[in-house]
Amino acid sequence: MASVLILMGSQSDWPTMQKAALMLDELGVDWEAKVASAHRTPDLLKFHMEQAEAGDVKVVIAGAGGAAHLPGMLAAHTALPVLGVPVSSKQLKGLDSLLSIVQMPKGVAVGTLAIGDAGAANAGLLAAQIIGSFDSKVREAVQTFRAKQRDKVMANADLELPK
Amino acid sequence: MASVLILMGSQSDWPTMQKAALMLDELGVDWEAKVASAHRTPDLLKFHMEQAEAGDVKVVIAGAGGAAHLPGMLAAHTALPVLGVPVSSKQLKGLDSLLSIVQMPKGVAVGTLAIGDAGAANAGLLAAQIIGSFDSKVREAVQTFRAKQRDKVMANADLELPK
Amino acid sequence: MASVLILMGSQSDWPTMQKAALMLDELGVDWEAKVASAHRTPDLLKFHMEQAEAGDVKVVIAGAGGAAHLPGMLAAHTALPVLGVPVSSKQLKGLDSLLSIVQMPKGVAVGTLAIGDAGAANAGLLAAQIIGSFDSKVREAVQTFRAKQRDKVMANADLELPK
Amino acid sequence: MASVLILMGSQSDWPTMQKAALMLDELGVDWEAKVASAHRTPDLLKFHMEQAEAGDVKVVIAGAGGAAHLPGMLAAHTALPVLGVPVSSKQLKGLDSLLSIVQMPKGVAVGTLAIGDAGAANAGLLAAQIIGSFDSKVREAVQTFRAKQRDKVMANADLELPK
Amino acid sequence: MASVLILMGSQSDWPTMQKAALMLDELGVDWEAKVASAHRTPDLLKFHMEQAEAGDVKVVIAGAGGAAHLPGMLAAHTALPVLGVPVSSKQLKGLDSLLSIVQMPKGVAVGTLAIGDAGAANAGLLAAQIIGSFDSKVREAVQTFRAKQRDKVMANADLELPK
Amino acid sequence: MASVLILMGSQSDWPTMQKAALMLDELGVDWEAKVASAHRTPDLLKFHMEQAEAGDVKVVIAGAGGAAHLPGMLAAHTALPVLGVPVSSKQLKGLDSLLSIVQMPKGVAVGTLAIGDAGAANAGLLAAQIIGSFDSKVREAVQTFRAKQRDKVMANADLELPK
Amino acid sequence: MASVLILMGSQSDWPTMQKAALMLDELGVDWEAKVASAHRTPDLLKFHMEQAEAGDVKVVIAGAGGAAHLPGMLAAHTALPVLGVPVSSKQLKGLDSLLSIVQMPKGVAVGTLAIGDAGAANAGLLAAQIIGSFDSKVREAVQTFRAKQRDKVMANADLELPK
Amino acid sequence: MASVLILMGSQSDWPTMQKAALMLDELGVDWEAKVASAHRTPDLLKFHMEQAEAGDVKVVIAGAGGAAHLPGMLAAHTALPVLGVPVSSKQLKGLDSLLSIVQMPKGVAVGTLAIGDAGAANAGLLAAQIIGSFDSKVREAVQTFRAKQRDKVMANADLELPK
Repeated sequence: MASVLILMGSQSDWPTMQKAALMLDELGVDWEAKVASAHRTPDLLKFHMEQAEAGDVKVVIAGAGGAAHLPGMLAAHTALPVLGVPVSSKQLKGLDSLLSIVQMPKGVAVGTLAIGDAGAANAGLLAAQIIGSFDSKVREAVQTFRAKQRDKVMANADLELPK
Repeated sequence: MASVLILMGSQSDWPTMQKAALMLDELGVDWEAKVASAHRTPDLLKFHMEQAEAGDVKVVIAGAGGAAHLPGMLAAHTALPVLGVPVSSKQLKGLDSLLSIVQMPKGVAVGTLAIGDAGAANAGLLAAQIIGSFDSKVREAVQTFRAKQRDKVMANADLELPK
Repeated sequence: MASVLILMGSQSDWPTMQKAALMLDELGVDWEAKVASAHRTPDLLKFHMEQAEAGDVKVVIAGAGGAAHLPGMLAAHTALPVLGVPVSSKQLKGLDSLLSIVQMPKGVAVGTLAIGDAGAANAGLLAAQIIGSFDSKVREAVQTFRAKQRDKVMANADLELPK
Repeated sequence: MASVLILMGSQSDWPTMQKAALMLDELGVDWEAKVASAHRTPDLLKFHMEQAEAGDVKVVIAGAGGAAHLPGMLAAHTALPVLGVPVSSKQLKGLDSLLSIVQMPKGVAVGTLAIGDAGAANAGLLAAQIIGSFDSKVREAVQTFRAKQRDKVMANADLELPK
Repeated sequence: MASVLILMGSQSDWPTMQKAALMLDELGVDWEAKVASAHRTPDLLKFHMEQAEAGDVKVVIAGAGGAAHLPGMLAAHTALPVLGVPVSSKQLKGLDSLLSIVQMPKGVAVGTLAIGDAGAANAGLLAAQIIGSFDSKVREAVQTFRAKQRDKVMANADLELPK
Repeated sequence: MASVLILMGSQSDWPTMQKAALMLDELGVDWEAKVASAHRTPDLLKFHMEQAEAGDVKVVIAGAGGAAHLPGMLAAHTALPVLGVPVSSKQLKGLDSLLSIVQMPKGVAVGTLAIGDAGAANAGLLAAQIIGSFDSKVREAVQTFRAKQRDKVMANADLELPK
Repeated sequence: MASVLILMGSQSDWPTMQKAALMLDELGVDWEAKVASAHRTPDLLKFHMEQAEAGDVKVVIAGAGGAAHLPGMLAAHTALPVLGVPVSSKQLKGLDSLLSIVQMPKGVAVGTLAIGDAGAANAGLLAAQIIGSFDSKVREAVQTFRAKQRDKVMANADLELPK
Repeated sequence: MASVLILMGSQSDWPTMQKAALMLDELGVDWEAKVASAHRTPDLLKFHMEQAEAGDVKVVIAGAGGAAHLPGMLAAHTALPVLGVPVSSKQLKGLDSLLSIVQMPKGVAVGTLAIGDAGAANAGLLAAQIIGSFDSKVREAVQTFRAKQRDKVMANADLELPK
């Protein structure tokens, strides 16, 4: 299996969760993505996590919206680090997703990112940073990405702002 | 098994969830209560629900706080009706619990009650009303309870209010 | 009368509440739908509930938005179980509807579902689950629906996600 | 009957609602207070409002907490002006009470005051202002109260503030 | 002057506040509308209120958005009853407007209606109800309006709902 | 008059607003404090601001809670810069105060600080920073205060944390 | 350098922050605008603030959205007064930006304006008011702007409102 | 240096952040804790992160309250993974801390845990899980901890609950 496993509650979450995959591509980290619903396929969560541990996955990224139970339930089934992405919801704009993912009780942890696209991209970035703590090539890719970000801001900092 | 199964994420939820049991006692409905954590004992959720279906349980009541996944995950494992009680949380006073329980996606439902003690008591009452739709003795107990509530308000309605 | 009575505060709630009816159709449970406003036709609430009890209705589903009093006031007039659907509101996106329905005081209960379409569909599902606790044919329909949901997720789980 | 009728959902609301009565006393407006629960005695709401109209009540003040339906349901049963006081709730501190009272749909109105004691006192004041629009003696009492408030602030404005 | 004075913070509030005027028209109550900004024309607030008292205005309706100070500041300058309409705001959808209007301190009261159009219409209705407490012709107009609302709901209650 | 004028809606705000005065003392900036209520003494706001402009006040600090109109209404009456401190409120913990102060419409500005004591102290600090932009002695006092803060953190940074 | 330095986290914030620049133009205060990201170019914050102090900048205006750290981190690096503009965010509409900017701890202050365009314009206005406390020409420009606002409201106050 | 570096904005955060240290102790992971304020010692953030990278730290844990900028600003200065703990705040109970930490823009990530003690303990747990992805001894410690949690729940699941 790949180093990072991306799981989402429904295919409709892919436009958001794809941002994690694109970031991992940019940082040279291999990934695999699957649909797995906490509520519709609860029996598969344990199976996915056992496979991930057996397949030497390093980080799990999970995204879901509303009463978003997927990240926390995956964390309940594995010793692997789980990162959670609150997908925006129709009515409450992801505030429900955020609280459902981040407010985990003591003993089962989910590292939660921002609501929506930025959070998904950052889940990819944080997964790479985690791997980079043990793999200098990935850390260098993170540093290069950061330097490019910095250079891009600085190149534009002195431009005339349009009126 | 009893007609109503009460599950809670931790023994520390019992002071709240006991209000459901007391209401069921008052309405003459038998109940059983267990601790089962969505996050610390995820493998047991399916087992509890299979036992409940086999044991002819009619209604499941589940209470949890914070990122409260227990009611929704039990609902994912059974065709029995599940009622959810948001237990108050230390920082956000149960708003996180409420949103984590009520905002379920289409296809897996939890009938959610109010945050805290009133919600737990009402979960017991609603479970009895559900059973009462098919058991006239329980319905009469509900009607008697309601009449007592009404009489109590009316007996006090004309009292001098203390100044 | 039908097994499930769907009431809504205004015809403008029908696009949401119809999702409950469609779910009941899918699960083979008969239903009837009416408009009844807590605020504009308060005298009719008792009449509707007396008719429902006389007509052997098993579950009442009620939807309303804003200061959404319909589900709670129906519950005040009947021993039947009442499920509430918070219809989304223009400004506060249904947060007002949700709190107005779910935060009932001890002694009168409403089993509350999610805001909007998903909540309405789940109200139909939960009503069927309640009936299924006493009617094996309906329980089987619920189990078949769940199995179809699961199969649909699993059939798509290994598909290539579009890039 | 008195000019102002104060209704509350439970005797436990009296410590808050008494502030309305004390303000009316200060402004020389007669009042009467009763307990009437929207949920536990729904059949009495119409009766109370018919009595109030027959008894020449000018303003109705209603206080309730949580899913606070009393003010709106009273307004549904009368052409008299209804003022609503959101009583603070245990978990959500009256935010649920406030939204349940103020977010009424078009066609049935409740004039809503602040959460808790200040709101109850102001409900008494606003009732007196309403009566004062048609009764110069009451308007003068309001003006005298305002002048006293102003003088009290001004008398203290130049005092040394304690360090 | 007219019986009801409608004030708003900016002409851009008129599409909302016009709903108050239309309701007053329907109920046969005369009104007058003006623009007066708490923040841009603070010196005029007292003048407007003195004119209103001299001109025998019975009720003041004020609408504003964001940090909505107009209703409270008008109430500070008059003994007339003031009704407040929270106009929806661009970012926070009127939650800021609502809290800025309703949470008045003890001693100066604003009877607050719902956010937006429904609230403006209801401000007109409540103003008519206030006048109707002292003018039987206006009370009858309110009762006729209510009866029409009720009949409209009942005429549609048994219609086939579109599928 | 002093360089900074501190106004508050009620003497009960002094325990909070005193933090602004103590900070100004520490930074060597003279101040004067008065009670002036937007709602109970509306006629005095203009007077206070005219006096402040005549007396060469440089910055106005205003604190209030709930529907906190004082800072915005002072800003409406002066060209002096006004800083607002949201005083914590009993029920909503100052969220109402914050939104009532900060969400000013275009054209009248209030520089808003944090809710409660920290915000009041920072209002004093920001007032000194404003004066320090034109008075090098005050700027140096600000820099000295900052250096002391930094040294205090650094002196403790390597201490053994108690277990 | 100019009297006012406008910094923003990204060029995408310019449509909002430009409102500050336009207001400063209207009031005859010179400004300079730059892009500087707290997160992508953290090393430049100190440099920008040292340059500003050396260049005799009087006020810094900083705008950012989401977890908006720019205004607070600039304030940490300078004794100059810093004004913060919460830029609206995609999901939470700037409520996150507002709390991230305004809730600063004691000892480092940011004068915070409203969310979005109105807040940016008012940051420009408040900067001019600050300068106007020490420069009578700028104060007169503020007073003229205010008078124009007032005259515009008054000119339109008596117009027929369109029906 | 140790494998995990715990930083907090003030010594007053230690009672919360100590929960991270205790969890790391339980899991056999070495840690080091320091006070470093984003706002009072901004120049030290880069230094701390350079030291951490040089000292082969694997994970940084940072806790702060209110406008909590420490975790995000540390993340801006390092390629190491940063976990953030929202410390509860006096007025808004950590909702401000949570949003200030979690809503990071694309390109700089913080893995955020729950508000308060549970979040701090889980930050320690997640740090261990991260290290455990590359160190089988730490993973086994995590698995043992989880098994103990599970056994503890199961040992108590069948106990008589106290009435």
